[in-house]
Amino acid sequence: FEYLEKELESYRDLPAETTDGHLVVLRGNIELSQEIPAVIAHGGEGIGLFRTEFLFLNRSEPPSEEEQFKVYRDMVQKMIPAPVTIRTLDVGGDKFVPEINLADEANPAMGLRAVRFSLKERRLFKQQLRAILRASAFGCTRIMFPMISGVAEMRQCRALLDEVCAELLQENQPFDEDVEIGIMIETPSAALVADLLAEEVDFFSIGTNDLIQYCLAVDRGNEHVAYLYEPLHPAILRAIKLVCDAGRRAGIRVGMCGEMAAEPLYAPILLGFGFTELSMNAACIPRVKRVIRQISRQVGVDVLEQLLKLPTAHEVNRYMEEDMAHRFPDIFGPPAI
Amino acid sequence: FEYLEKELESYRDLPAETTDGHLVVLRGNIELSQEIPAVIAHGGEGIGLFRTEFLFLNRSEPPSEEEQFKVYRDMVQKMIPAPVTIRTLDVGGDKFVPEINLADEANPAMGLRAVRFSLKERRLFKQQLRAILRASAFGCTRIMFPMISGVAEMRQCRALLDEVCAELLQENQPFDEDVEIGIMIETPSAALVADLLAEEVDFFSIGTNDLIQYCLAVDRGNEHVAYLYEPLHPAILRAIKLVCDAGRRAGIRVGMCGEMAAEPLYAPILLGFGFTELSMNAACIPRVKRVIRQISRQVGVDVLEQLLKLPTAHEVNRYMEEDMAHRFPDIFGPPAI
Ligand SMILES: [Mg+2]
Ligand SMILES: [Mg+2]
Repeated sequence: FEYLEKELESYRDLPAETTDGHLVVLRGNIELSQEIPAVIAHGGEGIGLFRTEFLFLNRSEPPSEEEQFKVYRDMVQKMIPAPVTIRTLDVGGDKFVPEINLADEANPAMGLRAVRFSLKERRLFKQQLRAILRASAFGCTRIMFPMISGVAEMRQCRALLDEVCAELLQENQPFDEDVEIGIMIETPSAALVADLLAEEVDFFSIGTNDLIQYCLAVDRGNEHVAYLYEPLHPAILRAIKLVCDAGRRAGIRVGMCGEMAAEPLYAPILLGFGFTELSMNAACIPRVKRVIRQISRQVGVDVLEQLLKLPTAHEVNRYMEEDMAHRFPDIFGPPAI
Repeated sequence: FEYLEKELESYRDLPAETTDGHLVVLRGNIELSQEIPAVIAHGGEGIGLFRTEFLFLNRSEPPSEEEQFKVYRDMVQKMIPAPVTIRTLDVGGDKFVPEINLADEANPAMGLRAVRFSLKERRLFKQQLRAILRASAFGCTRIMFPMISGVAEMRQCRALLDEVCAELLQENQPFDEDVEIGIMIETPSAALVADLLAEEVDFFSIGTNDLIQYCLAVDRGNEHVAYLYEPLHPAILRAIKLVCDAGRRAGIRVGMCGEMAAEPLYAPILLGFGFTELSMNAACIPRVKRVIRQISRQVGVDVLEQLLKLPTAHEVNRYMEEDMAHRFPDIFGPPAI
């Protein structure tokens, strides 16, 4: 056990590169800038998901543009030269912002949340976009919109962003005019029209938690149906494939920032899909890196091809467990006695 | 106006046949056997969706097998020779059964509902299946499962159905051993694996209300996000296309029983998809039939081909409205002054 910890630590400064030379960038998901040292300590290259909700929680007033700017700038500077992907406010659903008057909703997960909320509260949204753009003058910054359901919503975000850029230019506020804009793919509709969305943005990041939840119509927080929440459901594999294929054809980056990215057993599958960026909680990075460094991308491609033929999540899971334990007993086999 | 009513009435005994000879069967959605005369009066050929929930509502005890059997038999006999599609209990979500102890759920629409509920309450489920199967001895009966999310769930239903059939055989209870088994396609996952599901069942019926809701992650009952509930969203058109293509390849029937089926403006699109069965509230049948009898299937195919190229629901809607008003001013044009 101690040996494994040492081994994991030794990976910190090594790239997440497969035995056949396929490079994957592993990044951290964070909520606070205080988590940055842990990301660096675990060998994370940049932030794949900064959840800005924390800034808005447990306070009587939303943070000002200036306050947000300082937090974002601080983070961006600390990560130089690696990028920081800042996700705009993702409230609603399971999250909660007391000072924002959220209506009672029968199904909050399918309600006024995330980018829908931002597009309604435009003053707040523009403030956040201004703060992020201003931070982009200080280091590599990316903007990511959550819960985009289609092209129309993305274009509304783009229009607002253009407005904000024009304002900043007029005020002579510096910002990175080439800042990359991306979206979370977490609604089934976004996966289904990924090819259209790929024309509108610089990158995708698949948010598996919500994508799985909506695809299967299963609230994973509901104990009565949690058994139906299956990351390896054939429909989920196909949805992810739609997104990866669309991204590849359009020549944009496709990453993943949901919990699926942090599960070492899934790493071969994600290699098979062709992901080049995975973002996860810092503590999970070494274990995923360990798997990636010990297998080839080709194994992932072969495994995925087999998995895509199976009709149920149960069979996909069993195949993965058995096949991986057989191919890589050191990593996935039963613990030696 | 009176003239239109007369015209609509004159269609009652005519088939819903396009000008190029494509036949569509129009059926009724009902909750009570008392609605059968209205279905027949409006020219409906059979019942495409009998919602059995009504039998379970507002009472202290669920209905016995015998009580259900009599209701189903009565209905099946009244519709001879047309089929009656009986959907198994679809409670949960927006529905409510007081005597069944439903847990409080944060997002009931993604909770323990429909077939999930039935698979948990197996005694109730078997009782209902027995009642339906016994009714099948008296006329053309079909069984339809709601909210199927994938192959595994369908196989569980099939296994239970086989159990019930074996019991009935042993008891010498007559039933139709060739009764057709189908599923609602209303979760995005079911649409994504429609080809796999097509191997397991005799027919699909697309439930557009829920399919749209889950695909877009929009609770249409929520006024704050109702603007995002768009039947003609490109992702919805693609999901429907996946289902229709899978059904056609497998040689099984694909129908639609959601509200989309009842909108005359959508009829050309549904012809384009190749639907041969549409089920709706009885009162909507004549208007849909009127459109089908005045256009060709080829128009639908051409229109759909154009629609599938458009990136937003807004553009799809505008194209439909303008193109249809232009091609068929009598049906879709502005009212004459
Ligand atoms: Mg999310
Ligand atoms: Mg439904």
